[in-house]
Amino acid sequence: MRVARVSGRLSLLTESGAVDVESGSDGRFGADPDTAFARWDELREWAEDRSDRDAAPHTDEQLGAPVLAPSQVFAIGLNYRDHAAESGVATPSTPAVFTKFASCLTGPYETVRLPSDGVDWEVELVVVIGRHAEGVAEENAWSHVAGLTVGQDLSERAVQLAGPAPRFSLGKSYPGFGPLGPAVVTPDELTNPDDLTTLSSTIDGIGQLRNPLAAR
Amino acid sequence: MRVARVSGRLSLLTESGAVDVESGSDGRFGADPDTAFARWDELREWAEDRSDRDAAPHTDEQLGAPVLAPSQVFAIGLNYRDHAAESGVATPSTPAVFTKFASCLTGPYETVRLPSDGVDWEVELVVVIGRHAEGVAEENAWSHVAGLTVGQDLSERAVQLAGPAPRFSLGKSYPGFGPLGPAVVTPDELTNPDDLTTLSSTIDGIGQLRNPLAAR
Repeated sequence: MRVARVSGRLSLLTESGAVDVESGSDGRFGADPDTAFARWDELREWAEDRSDRDAAPHTDEQLGAPVLAPSQVFAIGLNYRDHAAESGVATPSTPAVFTKFASCLTGPYETVRLPSDGVDWEVELVVVIGRHAEGVAEENAWSHVAGLTVGQDLSERAVQLAGPAPRFSLGKSYPGFGPLGPAVVTPDELTNPDDLTTLSSTIDGIGQLRNPLAAR
Repeated sequence: MRVARVSGRLSLLTESGAVDVESGSDGRFGADPDTAFARWDELREWAEDRSDRDAAPHTDEQLGAPVLAPSQVFAIGLNYRDHAAESGVATPSTPAVFTKFASCLTGPYETVRLPSDGVDWEVELVVVIGRHAEGVAEENAWSHVAGLTVGQDLSERAVQLAGPAPRFSLGKSYPGFGPLGPAVVTPDELTNPDDLTTLSSTIDGIGQLRNPLAAR
């Protein structure tokens, strides 16, 4: 299942186009994408059974962030070996956790206003946690994951690095600093979610390749 | 106006007792304290005009956190000169900003389970921002403030300080690590909100006094 926000509404992305979930389900599910996760299993069952007859074409510009109101955002810093090396620090033995405030989330095709010339960017794998998770054993982790998507982690480095301790959350949370999506893809859509291949992004021809496995 | 969560419901604390806002307003306002801020001015007008005839007694145990679902939490580290000195760092010239995840918020009379022996505590002034605020000039700051309350900032220092950069958000966000309340007090209730006197807390007879003005 590939879930997206199309013209602001919870939708499935299928080979035939976008299916509006509220109208396609005759109102069984609501139109707000952020409410989908509370009934994710039910939505998946419905998505498997429904037909594509309601699928409609959509444009890139109609695609928003699939998630705008997460209750928490855990961002993991220095999660790629080459980035740790680039930053001049040892690969951490414990994850470096910070947050990006949810107010920075935006769609994958939005224009982002840069507050300075010191804005850096990094393509990131985004894991959408769909269930309450506390003290979860590593082998049970996937059962708490609703799906995966891709994001950009924009950072204003001067604000981030000012002060006695790095202010990751502030420097990385300007409006628009968290482009996300377009789709949350359930793990069953992937050949092997434990063996993800390269993420890539390019800006003005400058490319970045990342292999999530290199984080291990 | 002093707003609290009494038995989970939006209430005013008055000299005569607690006034349930939904029933006292004949349903004009809802019962969820977190929805109060969107109509704060209207609530204040109503609160000034209503009578205390609906006030009822309450116990401390009925008082929960006045806010449980803030869209953002900006925590300011090293905001007291004596704490900066105690931590062995210079008073920062720019505020050290981090977050406590909203999931750590709890009521002022709750029992908090400590995950280790390394938990520190600090009493804090909590400012509840009631309006969208971005790029606000310092002289206009108070017009965005719904009210003030008091909180405890619990920190598991080993988790906070592990890794290549301090993980303030993680070490300070265990369940229950943000006791808050009981009341959000509007600035007009204070003689001079720019001249707040000492915050204090004691645990097993060990006291902590803080003067917010010393942060300047």
